[in-house]
Amino acid sequence: MPAERLTAVYHVTESAQRIEARARAIAVEQSVEMPVAAITDPGVLENIVGRVEAIRELDASRFEVRIGLGVATTGLEAGQLLNMLFGNTSMHPDVVLADAEFPDSVLTAFGGPNHGLDGLRALVGANRRALTCSALKPQGLPPDGLAKIAAGMARGGLDFIKDDHGIADQHYSPFAERVPRVAEAVAATGARTIYLPSLSGHLEQMRAQVKIARAAGLKGALIAPMIAGVATFHALKRENPDFAFMGHPAMAGSGQIAPPFLFGKLFRLFGADASVFANHGGRFGYTPATCKALANTALADALRRAGLDGGSEAERRPR
Amino acid sequence: MPAERLTAVYHVTESAQRIEARARAIAVEQSVEMPVAAITDPGVLENIVGRVEAIRELDASRFEVRIGLGVATTGLEAGQLLNMLFGNTSMHPDVVLADAEFPDSVLTAFGGPNHGLDGLRALVGANRRALTCSALKPQGLPPDGLAKIAAGMARGGLDFIKDDHGIADQHYSPFAERVPRVAEAVAATGARTIYLPSLSGHLEQMRAQVKIARAAGLKGALIAPMIAGVATFHALKRENPDFAFMGHPAMAGSGQIAPPFLFGKLFRLFGADASVFANHGGRFGYTPATCKALANTALADALRRAGLDGGSEAERRPR
Repeated sequence: MPAERLTAVYHVTESAQRIEARARAIAVEQSVEMPVAAITDPGVLENIVGRVEAIRELDASRFEVRIGLGVATTGLEAGQLLNMLFGNTSMHPDVVLADAEFPDSVLTAFGGPNHGLDGLRALVGANRRALTCSALKPQGLPPDGLAKIAAGMARGGLDFIKDDHGIADQHYSPFAERVPRVAEAVAATGARTIYLPSLSGHLEQMRAQVKIARAAGLKGALIAPMIAGVATFHALKRENPDFAFMGHPAMAGSGQIAPPFLFGKLFRLFGADASVFANHGGRFGYTPATCKALANTALADALRRAGLDGGSEAERRPR
Repeated sequence: MPAERLTAVYHVTESAQRIEARARAIAVEQSVEMPVAAITDPGVLENIVGRVEAIRELDASRFEVRIGLGVATTGLEAGQLLNMLFGNTSMHPDVVLADAEFPDSVLTAFGGPNHGLDGLRALVGANRRALTCSALKPQGLPPDGLAKIAAGMARGGLDFIKDDHGIADQHYSPFAERVPRVAEAVAATGARTIYLPSLSGHLEQMRAQVKIARAAGLKGALIAPMIAGVATFHALKRENPDFAFMGHPAMAGSGQIAPPFLFGKLFRLFGADASVFANHGGRFGYTPATCKALANTALADALRRAGLDGGSEAERRPR
């Protein structure tokens, strides 16, 4: 039986004459990373070496390249999955990781978000209306200053308040003091507003922060997976199956991993109930098309349930 | 007393007319991330809001922008330091994080590599000659296959053998079986070769892997900080002051963080005794100038000791 593969989809700037060789080079770079002629083991040649599945012209100088990578090479571990998808190839400025298609084994192994959109709606008692969220700012304020602003936001009726992603565990507003204080101020308003404090540091530090958040009655947190490491993020999601996680795009780069894939699919696969992304017309130059594609990817489950989408593999994720 | 600041250095593609406003926007983005006019707290305005220190024209459409960021905002934590340096601004395709200059408080807090170049030389009994290293490949081979190749490399006289960064904890070659087997095969040759297995997963998983490596008599490991998360990397370095860490560039992107800064300074600040980087003429298009700048930055300590360098702040790092 042939080894199971996932498909990584790259957009490569290359000439028509060279694209086939280039695609093979990427398949090798993202798998065995050595001259294939020097590999003698038949199992490695058959199951581990990346395989060019298709090449399609996008425009005069850009091609879509689909490469099959052995699922076994990922060890079904989040960091290694990212490594296999784009580790070394991220160093090539002319290659974009546009998408990846995962077999059920991968979707099942990572499991997606704990709550998803319906779960988030249930948390704040919203039905089909738009959900609202704002960031709690600025970093530098002491706990009481942030608590006062958060209380005002809760009284204003926001569903979610997230820490600004720059708010971490600084001496002027330590997590252990700040988060209970903000949580208490929000709760005191009587609103159903959910406050999501920002996690920082490594797994052990984030675990301690989740414990503090839970003790303060909170139901979720904000995390920047590209800073924390996707393995850290995924472990936290696993360990806290009742907790909601909002993914933040800090350190995600300027499109070398296509935002619809990264924020709309990969972060969600690893456990993001919601993904923060830049709006068109704001500071980050996202086009309406990018925002629309991102939202559609992230909403794939919801769209399918509403009969609005034909069904990508992200939707077969177990709920 | 004014708050202590570090300086982040960006290369920004922008017009001469707009660069001042753009620099101010980056200073705000990388600190309070909100309209400064809406901030009422004098401490935040004085100590937390980023400050444009200098703007210098690089060429007709590119400027060097130096921005002072409050050291307190980093919490002296690796992930948050990276977040402050480039978190949201990484989403701007026209900004490169070119460098950062750190005050002694930051250098002391992170402490740099455990061994450094002299320590690595001592580990393999080399004096002033060039050190040698190769990657152990291909992934997909079972432990015995890799052990056989590693033994050959050790007999050939290599100083260091590092796992290919695609070798993780896969079922066909689990870390717990593979690493002791390779270590044993290398030791059996009688060579002084140091084998550096590749760490993967989150902090807890990596701790277990370091434990296995230590039990097998190994003295160091390979880690990809941009996949693991820099906080995870730094924690491991702290917890293992006798262990050597080689940094791998996987997921480091194609230059949006300048390679000399990322691999030569930041990885070393967090604890890389050695940094893997792409050679000119190889598969990654690094120019000789980039490679030279990277090597010079990484060697700043050694160059200073040899009287070959004027002294950047990276060299004041405690040894």
